[in-house]
Amino acid sequence: MPHDIATAHVRFSGRLLILGFGSIGQGVLPLLLRHIDMPKENVSILTADTRGNKVAGELGVPEEILPLTPENYREVLTARLSAGDFLLNLSVEVSSVALIQLCRELGVLYLDTCVEPWAGGYTDLSLSPSQRSNYALRESALALQTDATAPTAVVAHGANPGLVSHFVKQALLNLAADTGHTITAPPADRAGWGKLAQNLGVKVIHIAERDTQVANIPKQRGEFVNTWSIDGFVGEGCQPAELGWGTHEKSLPPDGMKHEFGCDAAIYLNRPGASTRVRTWTPLEGPFHGFLITHNEAISIADYFTLTENGAATYRPTVHYAYHPCDDAVLSVHELAGKNWEMQERQRLMEDEITSGIDELGVLLMGHAKGAYWYGSQLSIEQARALAPYNNATSLQVTAAVLAGVIWAMENPRRGVVEADGIDHARILEITTPYLGTMTGAYSEWTPLLKRGELFAEDVDADCPWQFKNFRVV
Amino acid sequence: MPHDIATAHVRFSGRLLILGFGSIGQGVLPLLLRHIDMPKENVSILTADTRGNKVAGELGVPEEILPLTPENYREVLTARLSAGDFLLNLSVEVSSVALIQLCRELGVLYLDTCVEPWAGGYTDLSLSPSQRSNYALRESALALQTDATAPTAVVAHGANPGLVSHFVKQALLNLAADTGHTITAPPADRAGWGKLAQNLGVKVIHIAERDTQVANIPKQRGEFVNTWSIDGFVGEGCQPAELGWGTHEKSLPPDGMKHEFGCDAAIYLNRPGASTRVRTWTPLEGPFHGFLITHNEAISIADYFTLTENGAATYRPTVHYAYHPCDDAVLSVHELAGKNWEMQERQRLMEDEITSGIDELGVLLMGHAKGAYWYGSQLSIEQARALAPYNNATSLQVTAAVLAGVIWAMENPRRGVVEADGIDHARILEITTPYLGTMTGAYSEWTPLLKRGELFAEDVDADCPWQFKNFRVV
Ligand SMILES: NC(=O)c1ccc[n+]([C@@H]2O[C@H](COP(=O)([O-])OP(=O)(O)OC[C@H]3O[C@@H](n4cnc5c(N)ncnc54)[C@H](O)[C@@H]3O)[C@@H](O)[C@H]2O)c1
Ligand SMILES: NC(=O)c1ccc[n+]([C@@H]2O[C@H](COP(=O)([O-])OP(=O)(O)OC[C@H]3O[C@@H](n4cnc5c(N)ncnc54)[C@H](O)[C@@H]3O)[C@@H](O)[C@H]2O)c1
Repeated sequence: MPHDIATAHVRFSGRLLILGFGSIGQGVLPLLLRHIDMPKENVSILTADTRGNKVAGELGVPEEILPLTPENYREVLTARLSAGDFLLNLSVEVSSVALIQLCRELGVLYLDTCVEPWAGGYTDLSLSPSQRSNYALRESALALQTDATAPTAVVAHGANPGLVSHFVKQALLNLAADTGHTITAPPADRAGWGKLAQNLGVKVIHIAERDTQVANIPKQRGEFVNTWSIDGFVGEGCQPAELGWGTHEKSLPPDGMKHEFGCDAAIYLNRPGASTRVRTWTPLEGPFHGFLITHNEAISIADYFTLTENGAATYRPTVHYAYHPCDDAVLSVHELAGKNWEMQERQRLMEDEITSGIDELGVLLMGHAKGAYWYGSQLSIEQARALAPYNNATSLQVTAAVLAGVIWAMENPRRGVVEADGIDHARILEITTPYLGTMTGAYSEWTPLLKRGELFAEDVDADCPWQFKNFRVV
Repeated sequence: MPHDIATAHVRFSGRLLILGFGSIGQGVLPLLLRHIDMPKENVSILTADTRGNKVAGELGVPEEILPLTPENYREVLTARLSAGDFLLNLSVEVSSVALIQLCRELGVLYLDTCVEPWAGGYTDLSLSPSQRSNYALRESALALQTDATAPTAVVAHGANPGLVSHFVKQALLNLAADTGHTITAPPADRAGWGKLAQNLGVKVIHIAERDTQVANIPKQRGEFVNTWSIDGFVGEGCQPAELGWGTHEKSLPPDGMKHEFGCDAAIYLNRPGASTRVRTWTPLEGPFHGFLITHNEAISIADYFTLTENGAATYRPTVHYAYHPCDDAVLSVHELAGKNWEMQERQRLMEDEITSGIDELGVLLMGHAKGAYWYGSQLSIEQARALAPYNNATSLQVTAAVLAGVIWAMENPRRGVVEADGIDHARILEITTPYLGTMTGAYSEWTPLLKRGELFAEDVDADCPWQFKNFRVV
């Protein structure tokens, strides 16, 4: 354990129940034990399978195998949680909304990394694409924001969604400083942040991620390989592609649809995100094609920075994910698409076999005076392994953010339902930074029009590089 | 050497000059020495770099390094070739048309595996996409068909283009037999073959290939990895996507263009083939997405099977390549596209590091009474290594076809410029089959509409599954 980061940030005397003990659960547990001052016997795990047995045993935390269902969750959780406890939801296929409601009733603190539906919700064909979108899931969680002093329930606070919302704020402050846009103090509220982004001229924000982790075991035919939850990735990849829709956009994409309800900050494309590619850029990779996978933060960030006048949006950036998963996952997605989204028979979460690579995860702010600015974490597998057990580069970016969110919730126990955008970014970055490898800010001349149309004429908007149309790969 | 296939098929007393000694040159040389009865001292190699030194040395064939250019090729080749000799062109970046013309003047036999332009021809931005198409290259070679008794020049006779033209004929004969369509003898001419294909109801022919060869060295960032010529693959991948255009097609694709000259059997899409995906099927892989890379055979097969009345086409199948290169090449193409087709700095041709895999290469005939029929070669890396040195599964399918084409040209030395489609398929299959692993014919219920539109509505032509629109991945 690196001693310089072994600080106990908070003391907690309640019970902590970890629901789901997959890659994120296993990765975060040592961090929680390291940074939260609590009796270890107060910690326990409830999960659906035995995949985490070994790690739970090694860390000396009791694990119970008992999958939650719509039928049993109330009974199971009520028997295990009461006021002042904490439910850390790191499961898949358990409804976040159901858990948040129950936690509020019980007076229990809550955090998740994704607004999950019950099993099958992402691909429930009785629902319209709009109804099975992240937009709809997020609206269902926001509908619980009825009492700003209810027990704190942090929703969608992993790396992304989660940490990247804090990166955006820090990036805006850096950009303000670097462009001579003097501000005396960071904005204190949502309107202030929106105004700052508008004044800086930010038109587009990508969550631009390039995972270069590789192993020396080739992916097999009929095998899905990834550096984090395969169920999680395939679930979101099969949802409609979704993006926060900026006020500078001239026209809806041909397959773009508006939702008929809710905050109206985002649109969806009538197709799976895992088949939707966009051009983006990171400092180490340079230009690349990423997948426009739907993510909560694409909607929450766009919503948070929206400025309105008389109910109409006057400013909003376009925000979306542009994700290059590890190479084996790119191949896995290619195979999955070829089989019309019928999941491979075998799955492999890459763990000890990873031989090298970096997860480069940040936010790319575009359209301002300096063109494009990427701000984020470059974390190698070697760094991750040195910093924490049971983690790879991808999971550590998530687990550090989970740790920080849990601590923040313990420090702020009566804030109701809150998204990352509503949380003090400085406190989160303070806790997470020691785990994020190299934090980098880099400007670039890159635009999605650079070197386009050389071999073949392409249909682009040459007047405004920052139109979504120009980013999209067709 | 497996003794049962060590037959000398032909005796040749001229000199044999191998131009280009990359993966195909090195792979074919042992087969030529094995199956052609000729003095070894008559064989020599002329190439542009030292990559083949080791193999030339091991096989005891002299190698000269001297890159051909538009300026030097006449002089260099005239000094080395005269009537009765053979120029086997396995180079890249040397104009096939220039070589064929010279060989005819000199009375020299000729074979290549691809109608190549001089260096830069595939991506010459002073040429229109139509002018830098394979259609145009093929027309320039066909323009040399002025004398049917000139020295034989076999153009584009590798695996594909080449061998697959023979597969199509054999597949049609198998299909005729299996559907009770009795014929007394195989068709004797082009019109007869066209009539047979039409009578069987064949609407679409894919060259459907799935290369599953893998190594345990992961592809690096900035590295292009493939099982055969990387320059060759990237060159053709950056040409426009091209396809033989069937008479059953209801409408041109939105980005489809006709050529303003030539045989009119094919169209092109105004985009690189390496960015154009299509649905296809092979027996071992099942359904998958392949790249619609332009290839000579897509045009030559469509042209060959065309029936006309009063100058207008009354029957023609849609024909194109649907290629799933090895996984590392899929990743390499993904990276290349992300960099707007700017070639990676490093290249790696997979050789000894291949640990397993099969090249499944065949033709998929669709639209007939039994739906879809795939016929072709399933050759594993283990089989390839056992059959011939210096080959992997991909190269052996090519080199066996080169061998057969060379033998056929020696047996038929005065046939002028001839494509695979104009060659006796039975003779070629006789020579190649011992090298092709398992030759398989398989029927399938697969259509490009199978399991479509489940998660999202898709724009398909439900009335006719065999429309190109249905195959295309958008
Ligand atoms: N925000 C982010 O950055 C981020 C990153 C990675 C993962 N995630 C999310 O975190 C969650 C967990 O990810 P992971 O990589 O650890 O997934 P995982 O698949 O490795 O683990 C999922 C865990 O959930 C448990 N589970 C499944 N069904 C259950 C049920 N009915 N009741 C109780 N437990 C159940 C499984 O047993 C397993 O332990 C997912 O929702 C994923 O989308 C978020
Ligand atoms: N039809 C098919 O199935 C098929 C399959 C594979 C390759 N090919 C074609 O075969 C050809 C060779 O493929 P490969 O895989 O061996 O390629 P390679 O890149 O491995 O080798 C190319 C060879 O050409 C030589 N060369 C390059 N420039 C030259 C010049 N100016 N003068 C003389 N020699 C020169 C190089 O030195 C090298 O030896 C390519 O045109 C390729 O497209 C066809």
